Amino acid sequence: MAEPFLLGVLGGMGPLAAVDFQYQLLRAVNSASDQQQIPMAVWNVPQIPDRQQALAGRGPSPLPQLIDGVERLNRIGASHIVIACNTAHHWFEALQAASRAPLLHIADATTEAVAALSPTSVGLIATQGTLDAGWFQRRFARHNIETLLPTAAEMASDFVPGCYAVKRGDVAAGGEQLARLAQALLDRGAERLVLACTEVPLALRAIGWQPPRAAVDPAEAMAAVCARLWQQQRST
Amino acid sequence: MAEPFLLGVLGGMGPLAAVDFQYQLLRAVNSASDQQQIPMAVWNVPQIPDRQQALAGRGPSPLPQLIDGVERLNRIGASHIVIACNTAHHWFEALQAASRAPLLHIADATTEAVAALSPTSVGLIATQGTLDAGWFQRRFARHNIETLLPTAAEMASDFVPGCYAVKRGDVAAGGEQLARLAQALLDRGAERLVLACTEVPLALRAIGWQPPRAAVDPAEAMAAVCARLWQQQRST
Repeated sequence: MAEPFLLGVLGGMGPLAAVDFQYQLLRAVNSASDQQQIPMAVWNVPQIPDRQQALAGRGPSPLPQLIDGVERLNRIGASHIVIACNTAHHWFEALQAASRAPLLHIADATTEAVAALSPTSVGLIATQGTLDAGWFQRRFARHNIETLLPTAAEMASDFVPGCYAVKRGDVAAGGEQLARLAQALLDRGAERLVLACTEVPLALRAIGWQPPRAAVDPAEAMAAVCARLWQQQRST
Repeated sequence: MAEPFLLGVLGGMGPLAAVDFQYQLLRAVNSASDQQQIPMAVWNVPQIPDRQQALAGRGPSPLPQLIDGVERLNRIGASHIVIACNTAHHWFEALQAASRAPLLHIADATTEAVAALSPTSVGLIATQGTLDAGWFQRRFARHNIETLLPTAAEMASDFVPGCYAVKRGDVAAGGEQLARLAQALLDRGAERLVLACTEVPLALRAIGWQPPRAAVDPAEAMAAVCARLWQQQRST
């Protein structure tokens, strides 16, 4: 007999993004009854080293805390695990190796959502660690989609301060900086934007900024994949 | 050595209320940094019999699923457990008996918040099961606070349909019905309202209804108690 479906959410990075992701899961199912919603368990423990700092070589690795979270989610009975943070996917293989339950990769879900829109180019907004890792770019390239990246100057002047402004609760200031970066990518010819850091869509929504063509939110793409998986398992 | 603090949240009743409660926990700490937020694990599994139906003798008991959730939260390492549903406190003693981690009672947190406002009377909006159990009324009476209750007719015409409208996503219609009940309690002389069903504050906020003097939201009172407990443990 198949193990019961239970989605494990590895959160804490930050804690607000993990809560927002749970809303996206509820919206993705769009059910009239509580009982049809995705059963989930959430590890939302923000006492974990900063991922951006670690990847920049300026702080300790979050890997021990990430493995602890994955082990706890296995212990509570998760059948599948998702990571509610783009940058933490840097440690995806190590976490998969530590987990009985399979992990779903956010870049796979995002690529599916992007490919469905058939753009020739996308602008990718993400942490330096995510940009350097190349998960998104390699996957998009397989669909003949070119990825436009922020410049080093834009990362330093707009992305990093914008992101940390959101983290400390100054969503309006952060939103303005992130919107400037988003506009720059559109001005360089990006047909679509991929907002691959959980703080970004949240901050842009907060200030009411919208690109001319709908952006792809990897967390939303991930929620859609989770909802489909749950609905498939329920109907079998 | 004391066990590390980890708040276990028993949710799923409904899943949206459990997500809202997590927002209230984040707001209650009001911290500038992710790392200062409450570490938490959430069991948000909505495949559980309806509490109102069970207490009315019209459906199976949710107790087996509640105990399973409490056991899972113990297994993941919860040091304290809260139940993100007023009505489910009907099974509080049985759940406490099944748990190594202590459970915090929502009516204790609420009484503390109500007593701080020193009203002579409050109007209590809650499910029939919660009203019948008398947890809130007995605690308020110890502070010489009289509790005004909805009539049977108001429960049938406003509370029950209002609540289920919210559960099926029709927050506007539900809000109108619940606001009518809230106004009736104020008209009968309630100085303050206690909105002791997770759907109620959510629905009243959604339609912009506000009583003349701020209402007490038990979930918010509970979040405040959790935040204080976490901050005490961090500083020791």
